Amino acid sequence: MTERVLALQPLAAEQRTQLEQTGVEIVDAADWESQSPITIIFGWDKEVGPAALMAPNNHVKWIQTVSAGIDYLPLDWIKAHDVQVTNASGVYSPAIAESTLGYLLYFVRGFNEAVKNQAGHFWQQPARDDLSLLASQRVVIYGTGSIGQSIAKLLNGFGNRPAGVNRSGHPVDGFETAVSLDNDYELLKNADIVINAMPATSTTVHYFDETFFKQLDGLNVFVNVGRGKSVDQQALMNALLYQNVLHAALDVFEEEPLDKNSRLWDYPNVLVTPHETGFAKENTKPILGIFEKNLSAWLNDGSLPVNLTDVSLGY
Amino acid sequence: MTERVLALQPLAAEQRTQLEQTGVEIVDAADWESQSPITIIFGWDKEVGPAALMAPNNHVKWIQTVSAGIDYLPLDWIKAHDVQVTNASGVYSPAIAESTLGYLLYFVRGFNEAVKNQAGHFWQQPARDDLSLLASQRVVIYGTGSIGQSIAKLLNGFGNRPAGVNRSGHPVDGFETAVSLDNDYELLKNADIVINAMPATSTTVHYFDETFFKQLDGLNVFVNVGRGKSVDQQALMNALLYQNVLHAALDVFEEEPLDKNSRLWDYPNVLVTPHETGFAKENTKPILGIFEKNLSAWLNDGSLPVNLTDVSLGY
Repeated sequence: MTERVLALQPLAAEQRTQLEQTGVEIVDAADWESQSPITIIFGWDKEVGPAALMAPNNHVKWIQTVSAGIDYLPLDWIKAHDVQVTNASGVYSPAIAESTLGYLLYFVRGFNEAVKNQAGHFWQQPARDDLSLLASQRVVIYGTGSIGQSIAKLLNGFGNRPAGVNRSGHPVDGFETAVSLDNDYELLKNADIVINAMPATSTTVHYFDETFFKQLDGLNVFVNVGRGKSVDQQALMNALLYQNVLHAALDVFEEEPLDKNSRLWDYPNVLVTPHETGFAKENTKPILGIFEKNLSAWLNDGSLPVNLTDVSLGY
Repeated sequence: MTERVLALQPLAAEQRTQLEQTGVEIVDAADWESQSPITIIFGWDKEVGPAALMAPNNHVKWIQTVSAGIDYLPLDWIKAHDVQVTNASGVYSPAIAESTLGYLLYFVRGFNEAVKNQAGHFWQQPARDDLSLLASQRVVIYGTGSIGQSIAKLLNGFGNRPAGVNRSGHPVDGFETAVSLDNDYELLKNADIVINAMPATSTTVHYFDETFFKQLDGLNVFVNVGRGKSVDQQALMNALLYQNVLHAALDVFEEEPLDKNSRLWDYPNVLVTPHETGFAKENTKPILGIFEKNLSAWLNDGSLPVNLTDVSLGY
């Protein structure tokens, strides 16, 4: 039987040809109702996705997402119907790591003040000792997976070896040291920068809460490029007000888009970006690379060697 | 004869003690008139410096600056009186390189738009293909000395190997290739980013002029962390207007401070910083390190092994 792939992710002509050479048929979003059975879905669309997945004529056995997270999929239905899900974990890490380094340099190298002074035409040099080198900042990264490791690697290029926090405290390449989640107290006492790069799990929801922030005494920069729900946003705003935290750079939020009336927009020591740190035109190729590798194995022996998720765990 | 060092650069108590242990006497700025003869000047002050240097009671033979440039010194008098000058070249390069990477990430990773959108409470995601990775940007660095090399080294950590432009086109560590100043045309055709890190010499004044900018077709980012006089500011503003250049990050200007009425402040695609990229509290130690090394050699055999400048050339 020829596999029919519903492409909910736009494909360039040559990408389409490349996929068709494996022997599959590509079905466009517009044609999904007339071409069945669909057996594979590439990408997602919140209207077409569930409709095509659940249509009785289709027999979807595998979804390849173009995202790292899979929490927006109808996971209960997927689990009940033995559909396998592979994700694009890892693809976005280089982009997220680059943006994170940009965040850190923005605050450590005085750009936050420069941008505000520029708006008022103020030539206002800081004191020479007011600026630091990123090289010397003590960085703690929560989450030592693909994103955390990519950030650590870029920091290493600045001569900076961060500390890591993960579930078990196991050592990780590029990190000076690593401790488990319940042993982070000593690290935080001396930290200048804290970066959240943890996935969303039951353990990480509101991990960064009032108790967490209150142990900090003038942390230079807090970064969230993990999940919005990991941070109690109100507690963070209080921490910024009481200078437990001096600056924050945030790409993810408890609710997205961030409410137009949120006070967070106006904090002078906060940089808000609209959940975009993972974006890069360079991602298209590796996403397709994952799909092709899985597709070729799937057609060969039904296996999915790259980024197979555990639907019960949700990642 | 005991050497008397006029300290025009503030010294912490332990630094003072450390210097005195070599056997020199330290004279503070306030006491310069009562303590002669002064034989060495450390740092500079535009009032006390020339007065102490030229006072008939003093016999200054050596000035150790805390800056890389020495163009603010009375070089003609210095040359006529055989005073030697050592500078702090190299000390500021790590800081300038970190800020330069910050500039690049600011524009390449979309922060310029994010900052403006934040001011208006706009949650406005770019298209996924609108952002790039710094890793893939084709970077050309003018000047492959200490600053250029420090920038290249940080770029290498992003997997980016820049091209260099220098006087002779000689190869330099960390650069994929290097060409001479009159052979830069081919490099520029494919460049995404151009960084000026050249010193001020007769060759480099207005090197970046109308002719230079007109050969560019939508250069992503132009950076000046070299000298203000290397760039024809009016030509750059035109290039930004006609999109020969899409974004610019500037730390140095033809006249500093940048005039309050300059239109440059208001360009939405320009980041202005107030000649601060070299600032870092981490610089104090290496500056004193250079002075101590020179002082120890000077007391031993009258040599100045570190950063001796050629006063006739001005650097």
